[in-house]
Amino acid sequence: MPTVKLVDEANASPRVRAVFEDIKATKKIERVTNFWRALATNPEHLESVWRHMKTVMKPGKLDMRTKEMIAVAVSATNSCDYCINSHIAGAQKQGMDTEMLGELLSVVGLFNMTNKLADAYQIEADVLPETQ
Amino acid sequence: MPTVKLVDEANASPRVRAVFEDIKATKKIERVTNFWRALATNPEHLESVWRHMKTVMKPGKLDMRTKEMIAVAVSATNSCDYCINSHIAGAQKQGMDTEMLGELLSVVGLFNMTNKLADAYQIEADVLPETQ
Amino acid sequence: MPTVKLVDEANASPRVRAVFEDIKATKKIERVTNFWRALATNPEHLESVWRHMKTVMKPGKLDMRTKEMIAVAVSATNSCDYCINSHIAGAQKQGMDTEMLGELLSVVGLFNMTNKLADAYQIEADVLPETQ
Amino acid sequence: MPTVKLVDEANASPRVRAVFEDIKATKKIERVTNFWRALATNPEHLESVWRHMKTVMKPGKLDMRTKEMIAVAVSATNSCDYCINSHIAGAQKQGMDTEMLGELLSVVGLFNMTNKLADAYQIEADVLPETQ
Amino acid sequence: MPTVKLVDEANASPRVRAVFEDIKATKKIERVTNFWRALATNPEHLESVWRHMKTVMKPGKLDMRTKEMIAVAVSATNSCDYCINSHIAGAQKQGMDTEMLGELLSVVGLFNMTNKLADAYQIEADVLPETQ
Amino acid sequence: MPTVKLVDEANASPRVRAVFEDIKATKKIERVTNFWRALATNPEHLESVWRHMKTVMKPGKLDMRTKEMIAVAVSATNSCDYCINSHIAGAQKQGMDTEMLGELLSVVGLFNMTNKLADAYQIEADVLPETQ
Repeated sequence: MPTVKLVDEANASPRVRAVFEDIKATKKIERVTNFWRALATNPEHLESVWRHMKTVMKPGKLDMRTKEMIAVAVSATNSCDYCINSHIAGAQKQGMDTEMLGELLSVVGLFNMTNKLADAYQIEADVLPETQ
Repeated sequence: MPTVKLVDEANASPRVRAVFEDIKATKKIERVTNFWRALATNPEHLESVWRHMKTVMKPGKLDMRTKEMIAVAVSATNSCDYCINSHIAGAQKQGMDTEMLGELLSVVGLFNMTNKLADAYQIEADVLPETQ
Repeated sequence: MPTVKLVDEANASPRVRAVFEDIKATKKIERVTNFWRALATNPEHLESVWRHMKTVMKPGKLDMRTKEMIAVAVSATNSCDYCINSHIAGAQKQGMDTEMLGELLSVVGLFNMTNKLADAYQIEADVLPETQ
Repeated sequence: MPTVKLVDEANASPRVRAVFEDIKATKKIERVTNFWRALATNPEHLESVWRHMKTVMKPGKLDMRTKEMIAVAVSATNSCDYCINSHIAGAQKQGMDTEMLGELLSVVGLFNMTNKLADAYQIEADVLPETQ
Repeated sequence: MPTVKLVDEANASPRVRAVFEDIKATKKIERVTNFWRALATNPEHLESVWRHMKTVMKPGKLDMRTKEMIAVAVSATNSCDYCINSHIAGAQKQGMDTEMLGELLSVVGLFNMTNKLADAYQIEADVLPETQ
Repeated sequence: MPTVKLVDEANASPRVRAVFEDIKATKKIERVTNFWRALATNPEHLESVWRHMKTVMKPGKLDMRTKEMIAVAVSATNSCDYCINSHIAGAQKQGMDTEMLGELLSVVGLFNMTNKLADAYQIEADVLPETQ
């Protein structure tokens, strides 16, 4: 159960409603998801997080599918259930199929293993030939 | 300082040397990196981790640059210094430039924030229209 | 489902009961929470964790509300659902209102982002003017 | 060593310089810290992270010392060296003394222990009297 | 709800079925657990993870009970619910009783606390007498 | 550099000195390690953490070598450099040799991978035959 009472679109203040409308228009969705309804309990924070997300999550030199897959990788490494679900859905909307999901998660699993091995062995940076 | 004495290529046992040669040939590098030299203190483990990495890190439906960038995302989320360095280098070898790195890290930062907000608010899965 | 059978207050051994009574008296609650009922499966551990908590969680130079809010910050960063719930409840008992919770979580979210950016960029300590 | 070349104030573009000036004026510091100099390699990201931080890190119902101490708690839980240092310095500037730091870290340590115990025992939410 | 449709033993492809049969024979269980049924959506990954696990999880200089208890320690530190459950079950099969579980978790809790204290205090390696 | 000034044994207050003497006698070491010297900046906390550690880290149904190896597993999963070093040293003092360390870390690596895969696939608990 959420730790705050989610804000309903119907009863939102004009300030919150403005953000909600922008979220729906930008993401081309019909209803704001629960994440934003929870943040709306602090309208200034809602505005600021949304503004930051809008800045980061637009096509650039990385396409949106890649960005959503990176979001899945981060969320899986952090074990955030809600986020894993919503970003897998987001990446699928951008064309990620089941095989690509399988590859993505195999990479995530692999480097969660090798990260800890590198830490445990306290491996030092490689001196590359060109820097010698 | 590493927690084990790294295995030198020159003095490696035939079993370890065989893996080292395969790593260098597959990755087209001239010297095995310190990660593998540490794992080589347990030759069976070295073989098995390398075999698993070779299976996962080959081009598939995701290209190698995307896979290396996912490795950066995982390593940054885990705060593994050695790994961040080696996977940024790996992604750069596959064509990631400074702008792409900047975008990648902006996505990593953003979702490390929203992951924790989603967890803190204990947000429940969205009921999507089509599943109602 | 808990991984052990929780100890009931009614059937607790005298050793466990003594800790349970002290917890209820100290925290001014009528029933021990499930956390302590699980720890009670190892009475010596129960005693020792409770003694340590009692030492740390008393008013000092930091007041109890601040300490409970720090507990929320730690629990949210660790994504511990049970703990987020119980420490939000604890902080609310000490006077934290909805606006303060909103501010607290905005700070938690922000620094989970910047922590990972600092790690990813491997930023080195600043040389402050006075140390030059 | 940082994974990007830090941007010097002297050579910064007008866009970056504007953010740097605002950071120095807002934080009342004479030089921008390395964190911002790294972010400046992606000016749009620099602007957006700074704007978000400025929104969150101002006095509200929580005072600045409390907010900086929460930043220490998050950074310690995430084991971010640079961040632990900079937020301890930030909290000290707001009046946190050595005893308060000691108390803060004792709380951080305690709940990192109990968080993992709660997770390991898979403790379920308490049914509070009023909700029965 | 799983993020992929679990593969049924009955409908598995010959390639997946071969791995499933080996898992059941090796672990002496009658049905493959959900973990393997999820991995089976990517048969090559299933094979490779299983091969790696089979290499690591066999009696060596550490016995199987110790290895399963280490798996519990890792899973608790990572807060992985499914994994905590399955590895506690695995360790119990190898003879871990309730008292041993209690001791194991007390050690896990303790060092999750001291790890964060060591990080927060940024403690440097001890210079041991023999290295001076 | 530590975030506090480490307390010297020579200048310690009687309260701190008493704990230091007990640590040295219990652990059979000639000098207290830096961890305890940092905690000593908060003498009440020093006492309480040491008392808790003494309670947990004594031979029980698990022997000391197993307990130290679990400490290594936790520290590696948390990527705590100081702790990995000190617990590997502690386990070696209890008889852990290089092969055992190699096996230990192979188990740690493996389950850091499968933990994240289980989380990413959001695998649900297995219904075991006996519970149907």
